[in-house]
Amino acid sequence: MQKINVRKKLLSANEEYAFKNTRFLNEHKIVCYNMISSPGSGKTTILTRTINELKNQIKIGVIEGDIQTDIDAERIRATRAPVVQINTYGACHLSAAQVDSALKKLPADELDLIFIENVGNLVCPSALELGEAGKIVVLSVAEGDDKPAKYPAIFARSKVLLINKIDLLAAGVQDDFDIERAKADARKLNKDIEIFPVSAKTGDGFSSWYDWLKKSVGKNSI
Amino acid sequence: MQKINVRKKLLSANEEYAFKNTRFLNEHKIVCYNMISSPGSGKTTILTRTINELKNQIKIGVIEGDIQTDIDAERIRATRAPVVQINTYGACHLSAAQVDSALKKLPADELDLIFIENVGNLVCPSALELGEAGKIVVLSVAEGDDKPAKYPAIFARSKVLLINKIDLLAAGVQDDFDIERAKADARKLNKDIEIFPVSAKTGDGFSSWYDWLKKSVGKNSI
Repeated sequence: MQKINVRKKLLSANEEYAFKNTRFLNEHKIVCYNMISSPGSGKTTILTRTINELKNQIKIGVIEGDIQTDIDAERIRATRAPVVQINTYGACHLSAAQVDSALKKLPADELDLIFIENVGNLVCPSALELGEAGKIVVLSVAEGDDKPAKYPAIFARSKVLLINKIDLLAAGVQDDFDIERAKADARKLNKDIEIFPVSAKTGDGFSSWYDWLKKSVGKNSI
Repeated sequence: MQKINVRKKLLSANEEYAFKNTRFLNEHKIVCYNMISSPGSGKTTILTRTINELKNQIKIGVIEGDIQTDIDAERIRATRAPVVQINTYGACHLSAAQVDSALKKLPADELDLIFIENVGNLVCPSALELGEAGKIVVLSVAEGDDKPAKYPAIFARSKVLLINKIDLLAAGVQDDFDIERAKADARKLNKDIEIFPVSAKTGDGFSSWYDWLKKSVGKNSI
């Protein structure tokens, strides 16, 4: 019983911060997405390309979650987008309290959109609300087409699935990845999920992702 | 304070089961490795190749940890090695208690070696001892050469690092993966770590891994 009570207490403390973050984002008219994937699926590369290619249309800020190092924040900084690094030092996901403190360090009045790049982990971050408008899951084709079936929670809870590294399909080196199977399994879990196959390396497939993103921040007429 | 006490209690319950597992494995003269990686790094493909190619020399059993599905256990079963599936239904790592119950279902008297394939997660499983003789971390070159620096715990605690999918390096599609950087970063965290670059797809690099494995189960003269 004691265990259950503590867990409840922890969850509701996180929820309070998540509500606070949602309120803050709404007040500043900022759309916020929580990006989740395994380590090395390409979250940072997707973000740097997106920021560089949309910088004249959408003002984007980033909250970078990493267990250790600021390698990813440095890569975002090179785009000149505002970025705040959070190091979790061992923890497997970001908490809403960490996002609360990071939000205060971003120039909120100047931003349309904030991406939270969560710790690389396909499991734990899916359970914690950070106050975001939606989750975006990234799956690299190198990880295999069975991942939606094997790690269902994050696919069930995401607004968007970006299937990254499709250049590996074109190069013929990842010929055992059945993209239709991955899509069908994700849609079985979540019939409304938007799916964009992309290559952050070549830029292939990004225009549909950009259209969706512009629409979601109310800039679809640009 | 309450929170800390509960955490301590949970940890020591796991430790008790881990000790029990170690005792059981020692009594049966079984070497046991706990294999950990991100989703899709190739753990199951490494295991099926290893079992198939060593089946006349080492008797191998497998404990398969997955959040959901028995896709991986089915792949192991096809090699005819004994396998027990554990589904965690959301939990991000295996516990020693789960391994305890799985060990009872394997034909322990007939085995030299048991691989525990943990849930695909580069973070959480590194914190929990299951009673194994050592951890083996798998990193696919598709994940990037910065992963030892960014996810240090598991690299610091593993006996072996298998750098998988080196066929992608040879194919020239993953030319931004600096294998020397990955090795150097892993050795900075863990000077004794054994590193084997392999391709589970082509079999490249497996002979050194097999030599190490045979030596570790006392069958180096085979």
